[in-house]
Amino acid sequence: MNVLVIGANGQIGTHVVQKLNTQQGTDPVAMVRKQEQVEKFQGQGIETTLVDLEGSVADIEDAMDSIDAVVFAAGSGGKTGADKTLLIDLDGAAKAVEAAVNKGVKRFVMVSAFQAHNRNNWSEQIKHYFVAKHHADRILEESKLDHTIIRPGALTNDAGTGKISIAENLEPGSVTREDVADTIIASLLSDNAVNQSFDLINGDTDIEEAVKNL
Amino acid sequence: MNVLVIGANGQIGTHVVQKLNTQQGTDPVAMVRKQEQVEKFQGQGIETTLVDLEGSVADIEDAMDSIDAVVFAAGSGGKTGADKTLLIDLDGAAKAVEAAVNKGVKRFVMVSAFQAHNRNNWSEQIKHYFVAKHHADRILEESKLDHTIIRPGALTNDAGTGKISIAENLEPGSVTREDVADTIIASLLSDNAVNQSFDLINGDTDIEEAVKNL
Repeated sequence: MNVLVIGANGQIGTHVVQKLNTQQGTDPVAMVRKQEQVEKFQGQGIETTLVDLEGSVADIEDAMDSIDAVVFAAGSGGKTGADKTLLIDLDGAAKAVEAAVNKGVKRFVMVSAFQAHNRNNWSEQIKHYFVAKHHADRILEESKLDHTIIRPGALTNDAGTGKISIAENLEPGSVTREDVADTIIASLLSDNAVNQSFDLINGDTDIEEAVKNL
Repeated sequence: MNVLVIGANGQIGTHVVQKLNTQQGTDPVAMVRKQEQVEKFQGQGIETTLVDLEGSVADIEDAMDSIDAVVFAAGSGGKTGADKTLLIDLDGAAKAVEAAVNKGVKRFVMVSAFQAHNRNNWSEQIKHYFVAKHHADRILEESKLDHTIIRPGALTNDAGTGKISIAENLEPGSVTREDVADTIIASLLSDNAVNQSFDLINGDTDIEEAVKNL
């Protein structure tokens, strides 16, 4: 399975790329937007493609040759303004979905935000960010791609625990970025995760088992 | 025909409300977000409802009792940040569409932005604004409401000319806000405008005739 990881240089994206690269049966293509990032991944023997999510749908399509699945782990980040949230988290995601549809790449895993489906639970401070994630998710849901939407809780850099809790609605909690990455990969590899959306925090269930029980 | 005008206190919205109020067969309900705006419209004998577009879908539904059609003419305006663009121009519009669907209000006219359907023609300076308008339009298109999406060119405050040009794609031009309002109303009253989207600038054709020829 050839997996295009959009936002490969981000913290979750980096975990996903490394894990896809080391396990049998999956090969990552790291999609990044800076030449120095290309060199970093290529230095690790990882196939890499230089595409700016602010570019055209056609640019993103070019990155999808021979691709079987897409992971969207890009985000404008906390340091940029809401204008970039619109350009990357919303329209970048929308363009990636359009590119996948146009290229016939059926499988698409989206890294969303905790409770992005539920307007009542959006933080006032970053409500605009939830609006962008909410509508990106809806665009994916309406695309007819085989999708999985993962809505992680508060992200930490602790080592992965291998144990999670996933459900349509969870009480707030935290989750390690490494466990998010493993949940993304388990979702890619499980038919049960197709057309599913769920909140994700650390919990008591092995990741593969949790995903199989969806 | 009872028409809820969302963004009634805006410049286009004000024209729409006044015109609906004076012509036979249409009655506006002005939806505004400040008490002083309620008093202004009520002082003119116009039915008015106080609803914040940043509130819930249920709040907007309450404004749609006995309503036959919705005009969305709200916008966060040039003075606010991109966060408000996300909250009003995108999610406010999305919530209005959801409310109309939930309440069975079939007719919905959206005031969009020139070439909002065409990413290649978005101004770099306010690209985030076009992203918001683009996706609001797509949400309406996918809603199955009887919609009309009007994408006016550069807006002026000159007196209406009664003459326009409308088409899927036009070269850039300007249009008076009063002519936009008259095009909205002509669209509400013409079956030919159902499920149509078009650029709008001032031109050579009478407004009613242009809309009838869609």
